[in-house]
Amino acid sequence: MSARPEILVVGSVALDSVRTPYGEAVEALGGSASYFSLSASQFAPVSMVAVVGEDFPVEHRALFESRGVDLSGLETAPGRTFRWRGEYGPELAHAHTLETQLNVFSTFHPRLQDEHRACPYVFLANIDPELQLEVLQQMRGPQLTLSDTMNYWIARKPDLVLEVLRRVDVALLNEEEARALAGESLLVRAADRLLEQGAKSVIIKKGEHGALFRTADERFITPAFPVDDIRDPTGAGDSFAGGFLGWVARCGRTGGGMVQQALACGTTMASLAIEDFSPRRLAETGSDEIARRVALLHRMVHFDLEPLF
Amino acid sequence: MSARPEILVVGSVALDSVRTPYGEAVEALGGSASYFSLSASQFAPVSMVAVVGEDFPVEHRALFESRGVDLSGLETAPGRTFRWRGEYGPELAHAHTLETQLNVFSTFHPRLQDEHRACPYVFLANIDPELQLEVLQQMRGPQLTLSDTMNYWIARKPDLVLEVLRRVDVALLNEEEARALAGESLLVRAADRLLEQGAKSVIIKKGEHGALFRTADERFITPAFPVDDIRDPTGAGDSFAGGFLGWVARCGRTGGGMVQQALACGTTMASLAIEDFSPRRLAETGSDEIARRVALLHRMVHFDLEPLF
Repeated sequence: MSARPEILVVGSVALDSVRTPYGEAVEALGGSASYFSLSASQFAPVSMVAVVGEDFPVEHRALFESRGVDLSGLETAPGRTFRWRGEYGPELAHAHTLETQLNVFSTFHPRLQDEHRACPYVFLANIDPELQLEVLQQMRGPQLTLSDTMNYWIARKPDLVLEVLRRVDVALLNEEEARALAGESLLVRAADRLLEQGAKSVIIKKGEHGALFRTADERFITPAFPVDDIRDPTGAGDSFAGGFLGWVARCGRTGGGMVQQALACGTTMASLAIEDFSPRRLAETGSDEIARRVALLHRMVHFDLEPLF
Repeated sequence: MSARPEILVVGSVALDSVRTPYGEAVEALGGSASYFSLSASQFAPVSMVAVVGEDFPVEHRALFESRGVDLSGLETAPGRTFRWRGEYGPELAHAHTLETQLNVFSTFHPRLQDEHRACPYVFLANIDPELQLEVLQQMRGPQLTLSDTMNYWIARKPDLVLEVLRRVDVALLNEEEARALAGESLLVRAADRLLEQGAKSVIIKKGEHGALFRTADERFITPAFPVDDIRDPTGAGDSFAGGFLGWVARCGRTGGGMVQQALACGTTMASLAIEDFSPRRLAETGSDEIARRVALLHRMVHFDLEPLF
C-alpha cells in the first residue's frame, strides 16, 4: 500500500507491559495510534502522527511498514518512548494502571505536514483535548472526523472534551466515559444528553455487549464479535475505531447501511486485538478472516421483518 | 379471543408493592404469570395455571379476561394471595426484596386440565424447578417449551435447574443467572458452558443491552428497545418471555428469521412493561405501537452486507 494516505491518526505509540489472568507481555508495542493504524490499514492507507523516543525498537517500525502505514509523521524525540504498565483482574473489565512514564510523550505537540492536513478521514485518539483541537484546526476540510477520549480528560478538562465532541462528526466513548461525561447512569439517556450537549453523533462502546451509534434521528447497534479466549483487552477501543473509520474510508460513504457495516468492522477488529497481547494479530490476520467475522455479525442480527398482526 | 388456548403459562400471580426512584405502587397486580400472560396474549391465546387467595381483587381478574386470558386454571385457595414488597436503587438494576409473603403460593402444585396438557407452547416461569418438571411430565408433546429461573433456585437446587434446562427447548436466564449457573464471568463462555451442560438453546437477557440467543450452531442478538423513561423494571423478563413465545406461537415456526423476530417481540414487550408500574401497559397498548417498536428494532440492526475487500 503506497497509495496516498486516506486516514490520519494522531495518538500515542507506547511500550506496554501488561499482565492479565491469561499471560503477560513486557515492553510490547502499544499505544492508541499503534492499535488504530494496524487495524485501519487493513481497509485503507493510514498516516500516523505520533512521537517515540530514541529507544523505539526497529522491529515495531517494521511492523507498521509491513502494513503500509506512513510513518513520515512519526517523530523521534530525544529521550525514552512512552511506557505504560498495567494489569487486569479476572473480569477483564478495567485496566489497573501500575505505572505511566510519559517520557517523550509529555511534550508532544502534533505538527501536521501538508499531506496530513489533506487527509479526508481523521482519528483523534485519546490524547489531551487541547491537542485534539489543535489537530482539527490544522485540517483542511476532512470528510469525517472521529474522536476518542478517556476518563482522565473527562475528570480534568470536561469543557474541552465537550468542545471536541461538538467539533467532530463522530465521538467515540466507552460506557463509563459516556455515563461520566453525560452525568446519566442509563445509557439511553447518556446518549440523549451528549446529543443535547452538541454532539452530531456518538458511538458508545460496550465491550462484550457491542456498540451503539446514535444521532438525533438514527440508532444502530452491533453485537460484539463473540470471542471465547480473550487474552488482553488492551487496545480494543482503538482497534474498533480503526475498523470503523477504515471501512468508512474504504467505501467512501456513510449512507445506505455503511455505518452499520462500519460498526461491524470495528467490533471485528476489536475481537482480533483482544485475542492476543500487543496489536500483532491486527497486522497478521488476513482479509478472509476479517470478512468471515463481519459476515457472522451480519447473520447474528439479520432477519426479514414479517408483518406482526 | 375465545380461540383454543395455544400458550400455557405456569407461574405466580401476586400483589406487588414496589418503590423505585420514579414512584411507587401498593398491592398492584404482579407475578410472573401476570406479566407473561398479558404480554403473550397480544400475539396468541393464553391459558394461565396459577393460584390466588380469596382476597384477589376482581378488577385484576377482569384485566386478564379483557385480554382473553383463559383463567380456568387459576385456582382460588383459602387464604391470602402471594405478596411481594421490594425497591430499586437509582440504577434500576437490582430489586431489593423487603418482604415476601408466599401465602397460598407456598403449597401450590400445578394440576393441569386436559386442555392445558394439549397446549403446543409452554412457559415455565421462575417457580421451583421441581414444579417445572411436574408440569413438563404432564404435557402431551408440546412444540416448544420455554423455562425461566431465578438466583434463589440456582443457589438452592442447581441440579434441578440444570435438569429443567436440559428438558426444555429454550432456557431463559438473565446475565447474572447465566454467570452463576455456568460459573463463568464472560457471557460468551457462560453460554458455551450451558450448552455443554445439555441446554438445547439459551436466551440470555441483558437488560439495557438486549438479549442473545444461542444454540450449538446459531447466535442471534437483539438490542433492547430504547426506553428513556423507565418507571419500574419489575416483570421485564416475564414480559420478554411473553413477547418471545407469543410471536413463536403466532407465526407457528422458528426457522427463517422467526427466532430473531421473536427476540425483537420479547424486548418490545419488556420495554412496555418497564414504562409503568404493574403490567397494565402490556394489556392497554395497541398492536400498532407494538409493530412500530419491532420495526424500529429491525431498523437498528438491519443492513445489506457489502463485500469488504
